[in-house]
Parts: sequence; C-alpha cells; structure tokens
Amino acid sequence: MLSKNTVKFIKSLHQKKFRKQEKAFFVEGAKNVTELLRSDYTCTHLLYTDKFAATWPDLVAGFSGEKVQVLPSVLKSLGTFSSNDQALALATCKPNLRVEVVPGELVLALDDIRDPGNLGTIIRIADWYGIKKMLLSPETADFYNPKVLHASMGSFTRVNFEYVPLIEKLQEVGVPVFGAFLQGLSIHVHQGKADGILLMGNESHGVSPDLEALVSQRLTIPAFGGAESLNVAVATAVLCDHLRRLGGADG
Amino acid sequence: MLSKNTVKFIKSLHQKKFRKQEKAFFVEGAKNVTELLRSDYTCTHLLYTDKFAATWPDLVAGFSGEKVQVLPSVLKSLGTFSSNDQALALATCKPNLRVEVVPGELVLALDDIRDPGNLGTIIRIADWYGIKKMLLSPETADFYNPKVLHASMGSFTRVNFEYVPLIEKLQEVGVPVFGAFLQGLSIHVHQGKADGILLMGNESHGVSPDLEALVSQRLTIPAFGGAESLNVAVATAVLCDHLRRLGGADG
Repeated sequence: MLSKNTVKFIKSLHQKKFRKQEKAFFVEGAKNVTELLRSDYTCTHLLYTDKFAATWPDLVAGFSGEKVQVLPSVLKSLGTFSSNDQALALATCKPNLRVEVVPGELVLALDDIRDPGNLGTIIRIADWYGIKKMLLSPETADFYNPKVLHASMGSFTRVNFEYVPLIEKLQEVGVPVFGAFLQGLSIHVHQGKADGILLMGNESHGVSPDLEALVSQRLTIPAFGGAESLNVAVATAVLCDHLRRLGGADG
Repeated sequence: MLSKNTVKFIKSLHQKKFRKQEKAFFVEGAKNVTELLRSDYTCTHLLYTDKFAATWPDLVAGFSGEKVQVLPSVLKSLGTFSSNDQALALATCKPNLRVEVVPGELVLALDDIRDPGNLGTIIRIADWYGIKKMLLSPETADFYNPKVLHASMGSFTRVNFEYVPLIEKLQEVGVPVFGAFLQGLSIHVHQGKADGILLMGNESHGVSPDLEALVSQRLTIPAFGGAESLNVAVATAVLCDHLRRLGGADG
C-alpha cells in the first residue's frame, strides 16, 4: 500500500530545492530503474507494476527497501513521463565528493550546461566513451533532475561528478585542457596525446572568458556547410570520438 | 490587424493533417524566421514584434507577403514556444520532389526516425557537414513538424529531402551504402572513399532487416564504457565527422 507520505515525498522531489534538502531523487522507466538497482546507489523505495515484476522478478525479490506494486496510472501520476508502465524508484543522492584528476585519463568538464536534456545526453556519451569523471560548474543543470536522468539512459550510475568552480579546479589539477571553440585547430588535423580534460562551454555563450586562459589546446569540429553551430551534446560526442581515436588515454 | 482566419489557419498547422492539406507550415523564433526569409521558400505571412522589427528592419521592409506587428503574447498563443518575443512566419511546403543521388557526393538516408527532435537535430548536423540531400522513409517524422524545424535551427532551409520507400530508392541509385550498426567495422579502423549514402536506423530497432542487404559497409562507433547505445542524432554526427575526415566526397 502506497502511503500518502510517500506520494507527497515523491512529488516534492520534482523540485531541486527538495532534492537538495532531502538528499533524494527518483528515476522512472525500466531502463533507468534496473540500472539504478544494479548500481552502488542506495535505493530506498521501489514502485513497480506487474509487468516489471514479470520481467525482473529477481530484482524485485532481492530489493530490501520499501516496495509496493502499483498500477501504471499511479506511476504516471507521480513521475514526469507521459507513460510509464514499469517502475519508479527512489534513491539517495551521492555527496558532492572531490573528483581526483590524475594524468593519463580523460575527464569531461562542463561550463554551465543549463539544459537538462543536454546534460543527460552528455552523461550517456561520457559513459559510451569510458569517461568516468565529470567536473560540473555550479551553474550546470542538476545531475538529479528527472530530465537529466531520463536522457542519460542509465549511464548516470557509472559516472562520478563534482560540482565545483572550474577555474580553481582546472588551475589546481595541472593536466592539459582541450577546449571546444568555433575557431581552433581542426580535429581532422590535431594529433598528439589525448589525456587530460575536455572542456565544453555553455549552449549559448561557449567557454567562459575566465576559463579560456586555462585551455592548452583549442579544438574545432570542421564545418562543411551552412549551419552556424552544433548542439553541445552532439559536439561533445564528436570531440570524445576524436580523442578516443587518438588513443593514449585510459580508454 | 491579425484576422481571425489567420489565427485559425496557424492553429490548424500544428497538426500534420492540415499541413499536408494546406501545403503550409509555420516557423517560430528569430533564428528560424530570419533563415526562412532569406531562403528559397515562399513565405506568405510574417507576424513580428517591435523587437524583431528593430533588429531586422530590412527583412521586415522587404517582405512582400501579409505582415502584421503583434505583441509577444500573441506569438506565444499561436505557436509552440513557451516564449517567443520575435516572430512567427508562414510558408508553403515544398513538393516531395525526387532527390537525385549522383556518385561522388554524401547523402543521408533515415529509416523511420520518429522523434521530431532527433530529425531536427540530424538536419542541423547534415547542414554542418555539407550534406544537402536527405532520403526519408515514409514513417520518418514530418519535416515540417514545429519541433523538427525548431531543432534544425534554420538548417531546414538548406537541405533537400524526399520521402520515399528506402528499399526501392537504394536499389535504384547504385552507390555505396554505409549503415550504422552496433556490430560492424570500427570507424577508427575504416578507411576508403567516403561518398555514397549514410543510412541511419530507427531509434529503437535500428536499420530494418529489409534494408540490411543493401548496406555495402557496416560501420560501428567503438564503445569504451558501459552505455548500450548512443542517441541516433549523436551517432549521425560522429559518423558524418568520420566520413568527412576520410574526405574524397563532395565535402
């Protein structure tokens, strides 16, 4: 039986303010819920339908938190999806721990990526390219926003992140910084080692002027047609693919 | 003065049925409207705010169709944007003309890309990479859907397209077909000529079995981490970048 308090609690977690206060978030849909249950997150509540239980009986049986079987209409009323006939789970946010950057690995830094869909897609891209650490400027969208988690397609469980002022962090770590710019060295020409930090700028304004001085290599995706720019998640993928193609890092 | 008939007409164009019937569509926001006005589309109506007129006086003055200055609230009530303080324009759909595929160029074929946001983002990517022709399966999202046009960021004006059963078209044109698959030749290894057709499959099901036999080169974006897949627009960009990097085509 789903309690009124749990309903109220889940609804409050649509807002960042309450996610911060309660240190809790929810995920929706079979893909994200199954990935969450198999991850190192502490999952406190599982709301699931008969369909979900039939497909993942072991995950439901092995779940030791509060679990309730519900109708799809309940999941829809609690979450953000227009339809969800599978599951919704609650988990505890991870503390904002320091991410150590060590030479030889590739790390992603995001400078004010404000759109949750873009952040989620970038998390999925990072996971595809084996990037396990992300540095997020304080103005970047909230990692636990339902739209971020949805767009990440479960990849949020495999990426560590730190919200941190990037200027201090980049100064401190002392590894090469690749920055995405409209005018830089073409990635079809760029050679060399591919370890360090890949810095992606804001959707509208690009990399902050403050951070530009810390960029050791400006990279550009060469254009062949009339579009003025690429979506930031799309550009992140093309640059990650380039850096992994060069090899030499941890990938 | 905005007539009731125009209001009714614009509202009807939110639906594909009426866009087909009336052979008309609308675009919103400064970027798409200015690109539309500078393109070879026949633009019939321009609704603009004082802000738009102040920024693009020549475009407004030079527009010979029906034009009306309106308040931002009117644009918002007519369109799909949560805010639009610039402009909304109506134009005539292009007829579904045959796209000729000639050897030596790179063409994009989409097999049932159903999400309008993905189609719009792919149009923007095609334009960035100088791809001027797209072949769209009949089940692909409607090119003139407001979400497609919005995500294309004006690039829809520079890409020609044909809705056509892909199996017949691909058999007929006789150029190499690169297909995106989870198991194929890594693009970090693939060499050779890069002209022909790049075929991208549906978001959930990939390339249709019917079409697989027509693929001359299966390509794969190598994975380094735990994500099961990439978003189809993201994958399109990475593959286009790879093919343009090889060179040899029209890019």
